Amino acid sequence: MSDFKRLKLNLTKPVPSDYEISRNQQPKHITEVARESGVLDSEIEPYGAYKGKVSLDTLERLQDKVNGKYILVTGITPTPLGEGKSTTTVGLAQSLGSHLNRVAFANVRQPSMGPTFGVKGGAAGGGYSQVIPMDEFNMHITGDIHAIGMANNLLAAALDTRIFHESTQTDKGLWKRLCPEKKDGTRDIPIGLLPRIAKLGLDKKDPREWTEEEIGKFVRLDIDPKTITWKRVLDLNDRMLRGITIGQAPTEKGLTRETGFEITVASECMAILALCSSLKDMRERLGRMVVASNKSGEPVTCEDLGCAGALTAILKDAIKPNLMQTLEGTPVFVHAGPFANISIGASSVLADRIALKLAGTDPNLSNEERKSKEGYVITEAGFDFTMGGERFLNIKCRSSGLEPDVIVIVATVRALKVHGGGSEVKAGQQLPLEYTTENLEMLRTGCANLGKHIENAKQYGRSVIVAINKMSSDTDKEHDIIREEATKAGAIDAIVSNHWEEGGAGAVDLASGIIRAANNEYPGQQPEKFSFIYDLESTSIADKINAIAQKMYGAAEVEFLPQAQEKIKEYTAQGFDKLPICIAKTQYSLSHDAKLKGVPTGFKFPIRDIKASVGAGYLYALASEIQTIPGLATKCGFMNVEVNDKGEIEGLF
Amino acid sequence: MSDFKRLKLNLTKPVPSDYEISRNQQPKHITEVARESGVLDSEIEPYGAYKGKVSLDTLERLQDKVNGKYILVTGITPTPLGEGKSTTTVGLAQSLGSHLNRVAFANVRQPSMGPTFGVKGGAAGGGYSQVIPMDEFNMHITGDIHAIGMANNLLAAALDTRIFHESTQTDKGLWKRLCPEKKDGTRDIPIGLLPRIAKLGLDKKDPREWTEEEIGKFVRLDIDPKTITWKRVLDLNDRMLRGITIGQAPTEKGLTRETGFEITVASECMAILALCSSLKDMRERLGRMVVASNKSGEPVTCEDLGCAGALTAILKDAIKPNLMQTLEGTPVFVHAGPFANISIGASSVLADRIALKLAGTDPNLSNEERKSKEGYVITEAGFDFTMGGERFLNIKCRSSGLEPDVIVIVATVRALKVHGGGSEVKAGQQLPLEYTTENLEMLRTGCANLGKHIENAKQYGRSVIVAINKMSSDTDKEHDIIREEATKAGAIDAIVSNHWEEGGAGAVDLASGIIRAANNEYPGQQPEKFSFIYDLESTSIADKINAIAQKMYGAAEVEFLPQAQEKIKEYTAQGFDKLPICIAKTQYSLSHDAKLKGVPTGFKFPIRDIKASVGAGYLYALASEIQTIPGLATKCGFMNVEVNDKGEIEGLF
Repeated sequence: MSDFKRLKLNLTKPVPSDYEISRNQQPKHITEVARESGVLDSEIEPYGAYKGKVSLDTLERLQDKVNGKYILVTGITPTPLGEGKSTTTVGLAQSLGSHLNRVAFANVRQPSMGPTFGVKGGAAGGGYSQVIPMDEFNMHITGDIHAIGMANNLLAAALDTRIFHESTQTDKGLWKRLCPEKKDGTRDIPIGLLPRIAKLGLDKKDPREWTEEEIGKFVRLDIDPKTITWKRVLDLNDRMLRGITIGQAPTEKGLTRETGFEITVASECMAILALCSSLKDMRERLGRMVVASNKSGEPVTCEDLGCAGALTAILKDAIKPNLMQTLEGTPVFVHAGPFANISIGASSVLADRIALKLAGTDPNLSNEERKSKEGYVITEAGFDFTMGGERFLNIKCRSSGLEPDVIVIVATVRALKVHGGGSEVKAGQQLPLEYTTENLEMLRTGCANLGKHIENAKQYGRSVIVAINKMSSDTDKEHDIIREEATKAGAIDAIVSNHWEEGGAGAVDLASGIIRAANNEYPGQQPEKFSFIYDLESTSIADKINAIAQKMYGAAEVEFLPQAQEKIKEYTAQGFDKLPICIAKTQYSLSHDAKLKGVPTGFKFPIRDIKASVGAGYLYALASEIQTIPGLATKCGFMNVEVNDKGEIEGLF
Repeated sequence: MSDFKRLKLNLTKPVPSDYEISRNQQPKHITEVARESGVLDSEIEPYGAYKGKVSLDTLERLQDKVNGKYILVTGITPTPLGEGKSTTTVGLAQSLGSHLNRVAFANVRQPSMGPTFGVKGGAAGGGYSQVIPMDEFNMHITGDIHAIGMANNLLAAALDTRIFHESTQTDKGLWKRLCPEKKDGTRDIPIGLLPRIAKLGLDKKDPREWTEEEIGKFVRLDIDPKTITWKRVLDLNDRMLRGITIGQAPTEKGLTRETGFEITVASECMAILALCSSLKDMRERLGRMVVASNKSGEPVTCEDLGCAGALTAILKDAIKPNLMQTLEGTPVFVHAGPFANISIGASSVLADRIALKLAGTDPNLSNEERKSKEGYVITEAGFDFTMGGERFLNIKCRSSGLEPDVIVIVATVRALKVHGGGSEVKAGQQLPLEYTTENLEMLRTGCANLGKHIENAKQYGRSVIVAINKMSSDTDKEHDIIREEATKAGAIDAIVSNHWEEGGAGAVDLASGIIRAANNEYPGQQPEKFSFIYDLESTSIADKINAIAQKMYGAAEVEFLPQAQEKIKEYTAQGFDKLPICIAKTQYSLSHDAKLKGVPTGFKFPIRDIKASVGAGYLYALASEIQTIPGLATKCGFMNVEVNDKGEIEGLF
């Protein structure tokens, strides 16, 4: 990265607000970031001065390169205090790229605007480790989430409208409209309906030759409204839309139905954006999405509704990963952000693959040369290792064919104390004393949670490094305890990092440790074979769930409630039992019960229901009611936001 | 425009589909279009290769220029056959810019994606007069409509959530949360709530000093749910959302409410985007938007909810006009698209003002020099002259302070025959014979409709030119009749134009006529004073409506139904009677009854209700039930759309 231009940080204390830090740094033009990253001018489309889309052609051009190193950042079980995973991901990339002279990408998710204006705030990192401009990062970026919303909602409108028209028209009437007569008397078939014709085996090309029965089969999807799983979405925390009744205007003639909205990032379209490998693959996955069953119990897909081409058109730019930069001018890919509560909570396969090629090396290099030249891709998984990391490895890595080289687990003294029995904390309220003063015993107890995540990560055959994200009230003795307990649990190292306060300079030790670990240079470190915790083909749905609950969560056994048992039968019969599993449960405990901190054991893990994201390519099993659209609090983020006289945004955090 | 690089057209017959023509033309990079148009490199932000946002700084830099000529394109009363207003607007700009060596901008609305995937199709023009790339034009552009949707819906979520929290908390509880305690014991007031504090006259800055009564006034908006006028929006034709009940999930504790969605372009935020003059003006207008009344009948605004800053932040890029280009490489501004059914149906004031400066001339030029150097801005108003043109002049021009130099009315032989008593036509079905063969009598009868629009336009003191948008089945005699009737009605000229088939070359006669008219060079043409048909200050709400209905529509009288009478009283008391009026009625007749073609007279025009868009700055009076979210037909545009192996979109029209 010889021509890399580092953006210097002007560190001040106390650390100013995130948006002040972001605003006071002048970013490079995105075309410059692209050039420095090895993206050709013809492969970057700027969206404004500081964001750009990178063409998928990059992958083909660089196909012969040996991938750079792939570093997965995960965390301990989340607490209301936050552990700083995104901040660590960004700080690490700043350190590698701007201080250790490596090509280094941070690959992160695009945040939903719901939480940005709700309670949680933005997701650009924080302090002196941020993606900038943070306001552009937190709002819109290049519009991918908006495009996802459009695609999702066009399908919803098409679905409900189809039911409406089928309810008011005869087969012949539907046929006349769906296959309109041309001037020469022949009938046109819209291109979007050709896949359904193929599926039905209607080989007669001329619709005039179809029998009445064939016409009926073609025009009537015969959707059972009770089976509709497809919901509408909005990228907002709008709790009033969780449960609604639609179709109540007189024009809908009484065809009402209960349904609800989810947040846009919970859309299956978003999971597809994260997991697909090409435009063609996205097109096919969109077509496979199941939206309901017909009255005979067969799945009705997006393809049946003739929507898949239009959805692909809507998403044809969204599929290109977005390039931005960190406070120190290193490149960042921001692409896709499937909702961690019910989906994989990881950024896109395509962004990772492109970044790994851009960080990659010539295949003819010697190992020694490669070691000194190869770059790093730091990517993040939502929630803790045991949820986000497990899904990253078992779902995303299976989809991409990639394997991480090192797994990082981020922990803080404070958050570990929550797991060690500290009193309850609430975001935005003052911290009880034990969190801001030394308390070695509580911390040591809490380290069991960290230990469990380390053990879990090691089951995949990867080296684990613990990143101790430093807070000002931490003591050296506290850091020593974490180091001791982490090593005892099997981590190859535990390294203190101060990137929030110091940017990349504060993460040099951590970054250096990661380079050592990625190259198997720790004493006694042995290269291991990467392995999954369950096999896709030979393991049943129930046993896949058992594997995750027992090997990862520490459950004694899994209890499948009746609805779940029924779904296992149904999906197995439909051939969906070869798909990997995403378990939706609380993120606040290793178990299904948010109150159980530390390392719960011996519990019976309930599976209430199982749903299929056939297009995205996984089943998701629900361990509890999962809220798929958050609400706004009495005092919300949006109340702090203002645009000043210079046109700058104030108050985003 | 000496350095303008014309894109050559490769005309073929029969004229290929719109997307084929668009795809086969290689556009210039948007930075090149910007440079040719006089936009500095620092003033254009590319969004991809062919779209860009133009900075509002341009206005300040060019403030001393004398504006170019301002040409308003309108039409006769719409028919299902379409008259080709957008195509004419684009064709005219291609002609002026690419054939007559003038700086020429086409300023058009951003289309909603609802109709794009519904029945209507795209809005980029058509044939050899299009904005390109037409797929990018018809989908997303730079995300402005998505941003409008976010802003609108954040306000809706804030509103409903506020009612929910007020219903479950005491005054003190709300106060504690809205003004959270800081470490030093003082209380924080979110910046977004300061305007409400000012409005209430709460001059004590420290919330701890407020009396119980003051706390109550501050925290409790006390919204009457029955009075809520604010709806959620989606940029889709989703008829099932016209009437819905929200809040039915158990978490909302029974706080259900009937409401509905509108199409995003119907949002008042969109009207504000079209009418505002600066970021600051937009901020203030957003704050003034009225969403409901409190239980004492006082208006509750966006500002009361603490949302106006956040909405401005969401829209801070949307306010910058988007630059694109025509098939012949001339510049196009695409900015804002308020729904013509209930709003002004015109593109933005800011885009027009910037284009007029870019097309403008040095103030020191002589009149003769100016005439040869000055440029043209061709802008379009939705629906016919009498709806779109009237709103353009009485609402948009009042807001901008601009006056058009020439008014163009587009007509086709076919559409005039509909007004002359031709049999019913439906989009997508074969045309009855009278429309494709010569029928002079029917045409002459139909010309009365054109005549009425000409007379209406002349009331504003402007010269009118009729553009006869040529179809292949037209005969010369038919064109002669239109010319004769148009001149008789007061048009300064009526000129045949063949831009659909020939691009700008086909519109040279029309463009030349417009240059003549704009310079008062027609024999006998006299410069007239521009005048409005009603005065804002001295005319009551009822008399403004009378003026529009009688002077424009041809009504004998206006009947104000009880709801409308009540609103007149209410708005007059609230001081909103100084606002201009937007009348929402069917576009298919000069009257309120879609079936009355030609020039209906003597009818009683009903006003059922009046609503206020206080932020946008107008009242809108409803002459009938207006559908604010369209539906999808059995066979819809989306069924024709596919993305081919090269990643190109097929089937958009």
